[in-house]
Amino acid sequence: MEQPEMTVNKRIPKAVIKRLSLYSRVLQNLEMKNITKVSSKELSEQLGQNPAQVRKDLAYFGQFGIPGVGYYVADLRAQIKKILRTDREVRVGVVGVGHLGQALMSYTGFVREGFQIAGAFDADPAKVGLEVRGARVFPIDELEQRIRELGIEIVILALPSEAAQLVVDRVVPCGITAILNFVPTRLAVPPGVKVHYVDLTIELESLAYYLK
Amino acid sequence: MEQPEMTVNKRIPKAVIKRLSLYSRVLQNLEMKNITKVSSKELSEQLGQNPAQVRKDLAYFGQFGIPGVGYYVADLRAQIKKILRTDREVRVGVVGVGHLGQALMSYTGFVREGFQIAGAFDADPAKVGLEVRGARVFPIDELEQRIRELGIEIVILALPSEAAQLVVDRVVPCGITAILNFVPTRLAVPPGVKVHYVDLTIELESLAYYLK
Repeated sequence: MEQPEMTVNKRIPKAVIKRLSLYSRVLQNLEMKNITKVSSKELSEQLGQNPAQVRKDLAYFGQFGIPGVGYYVADLRAQIKKILRTDREVRVGVVGVGHLGQALMSYTGFVREGFQIAGAFDADPAKVGLEVRGARVFPIDELEQRIRELGIEIVILALPSEAAQLVVDRVVPCGITAILNFVPTRLAVPPGVKVHYVDLTIELESLAYYLK
Repeated sequence: MEQPEMTVNKRIPKAVIKRLSLYSRVLQNLEMKNITKVSSKELSEQLGQNPAQVRKDLAYFGQFGIPGVGYYVADLRAQIKKILRTDREVRVGVVGVGHLGQALMSYTGFVREGFQIAGAFDADPAKVGLEVRGARVFPIDELEQRIRELGIEIVILALPSEAAQLVVDRVVPCGITAILNFVPTRLAVPPGVKVHYVDLTIELESLAYYLK
């Protein structure tokens, strides 16, 4: 028997979830400017979306706005963080401590949104013991043990392509269900495990289109 | 008077352009497996899109598939690269040579898709003169001069937030119309200049949603 909550989640398009994260970012900016209320028109302008889209996105999760008024900024942001389940600290592990891995370990945006880099892993003994913003680099041999000890829920892959699948096959049995993949390789994962691919080439390629 | 081509471009949603780049990637994988033909059903399955979407996306640019057969892989990929204007070398400059900047300079995926990191820029004299995969780091003072000399068309921003707008204000008068921004800051640009924002937090946040 399916759990009702799972059924609901499945129906919500990935694009809606991504936009919610964008909304959260815009609301945070408004909060910093001491703006307490925002119309769906204003909110949508800041997002480059149309107001109907914003209303439709939020309607997946309930009734938020007040007709003729708009949204209360702090309240809407809190609701969105609750929907996204980032209203708590989410512990993240980085596998691969090259330039990209180190860039991710020092990315301050993560902490601001409730993500804590709990630890990182590398096969190179020269990297082990390194500390970046309070997160330590552990030997890759300790991957399973440290994931459990540190309560890591999301794994970021920033390692060479050929090692990516091996790491996936080790972290999934530890209960990891969410992987952010910077490696330009398709990964095989069992059902229930979500992989987001960050492909930097796609961003560049779609920009090239707009060159005069 | 508007040029007809510009009018056409404006009507094509950003999401379509991004998907074209994805299609190109999938077609490249098929080419490597020596597959010469693909049905829109097969293509869409690999992309996690429905076939109607694939047909609709391509229909913006003309008639590509052959009814009942599908698409010729090499031909479709060549056409898409032409649409995306990456059927030539596009020269890219990286501003900011920290961990992220160096990760971008060594990202092999760019070269494979026709992007050449022509040079990088940093204010730190210790970074100047460094070479990563044939691209040199120049002093930030030489930004305008080197952009022109090196024929840079796209600028990637990987520098501290507070310096981002200053750099934009310097590169736009050099004729730069495409900026890939890794800095978590909204940038003010004149009309006709396109900025793509890469926000790593959004990727993580939308993954958190899927955690059990």
